[in-house]
Amino acid sequence: MEFNPNTHVFKSPKVHTIIKEAIDFLNRTSAYQLPPPEPFIGTGVYCLYYFGNFDLYKKFACLDITKCTQPIYVGKAVPKGWRTARTGSESDSTLYGRLREHGRSISQGAGLDIKDFKCRFMILKGDESNMITIVEAALIRKYKPLWNTVVDGFGNHDPGSGRYDQAKSEWDVLHPGRTWAEKLRGKSPDLEEVKAKIRKALK
Amino acid sequence: MEFNPNTHVFKSPKVHTIIKEAIDFLNRTSAYQLPPPEPFIGTGVYCLYYFGNFDLYKKFACLDITKCTQPIYVGKAVPKGWRTARTGSESDSTLYGRLREHGRSISQGAGLDIKDFKCRFMILKGDESNMITIVEAALIRKYKPLWNTVVDGFGNHDPGSGRYDQAKSEWDVLHPGRTWAEKLRGKSPDLEEVKAKIRKALK
Repeated sequence: MEFNPNTHVFKSPKVHTIIKEAIDFLNRTSAYQLPPPEPFIGTGVYCLYYFGNFDLYKKFACLDITKCTQPIYVGKAVPKGWRTARTGSESDSTLYGRLREHGRSISQGAGLDIKDFKCRFMILKGDESNMITIVEAALIRKYKPLWNTVVDGFGNHDPGSGRYDQAKSEWDVLHPGRTWAEKLRGKSPDLEEVKAKIRKALK
Repeated sequence: MEFNPNTHVFKSPKVHTIIKEAIDFLNRTSAYQLPPPEPFIGTGVYCLYYFGNFDLYKKFACLDITKCTQPIYVGKAVPKGWRTARTGSESDSTLYGRLREHGRSISQGAGLDIKDFKCRFMILKGDESNMITIVEAALIRKYKPLWNTVVDGFGNHDPGSGRYDQAKSEWDVLHPGRTWAEKLRGKSPDLEEVKAKIRKALK
């Protein structure tokens, strides 16, 4: 029997439909300041939006959240252990935790004001939790958010003691102040180069 | 306005349907010895099946590939850079590369014979490439393959020079012989404990 790789290609028109449905759903949810008003249980996908006057981001900033769907950052919170078929805990609040952590990063980062940010989020649980990664990837491809595709490092975590020999990220050079990032001792990216990269991307 | 997390929960019946379609499709594709007869372009998901007599795996082994859908290992090959919205290369042959690498691992691993293995694979490209992770996760949840959920380390790569102070994986203790794994100098898992774990899992 002849070997034909084409007989192994899986196609389904439902894929495109479901990603579109999910993004439309997210764009219709309420937007909140960071963090959302109350802690909640759930994993899923979120978008952060910027409404401020930071010079480099002006071209990018939203004016009206009811119409704005262009995020500055897209992220996800996946159930713990989901890759190894362990069942996710029903009390997993990592999505809220991520949003709270982002709020803290923004509050500490120079040049940014937490009041200039809003977030939307979408909880994906059960079978739908399988879609977290594909919806996040589709959002990033669709909107190419600045802090996902141009400025690196916003979503980084404290590497922990013993690992502070790493370099600061581009985000931390641009918005210095995160407690843990200030401890990093590696050679930082050049601020002017980071700025030039943003200007080029937003041109 | 009251904060209600339930208004942020996205549900779609299409998710379940599409995962099922993909698994059914995979189970109907032709099975091959490792590696498949010719190199091919594509990313996607694959299953490895075992037909041999390795004592610990007997309860688990397949008899007839035309009927057997219980894999010993499930894996994926995702497009390079897919998480950062960079477009995947159309000449990406990582799926074939993974299967070839697995063939090499099995050939070198003591107690295993490459002739006792077969593989099925499914190419997912374009929009469908977003599904690679969810289909892999669903296959692992459905079949709980031994080398994904009980014996750790089959899918590991050569950590590279300067990192051989790591410990061997459970798989490498059970099937010693992989060239790079033999260089590892960390404290290995105990062989009898690994065996006991498998016996318990297959009971």
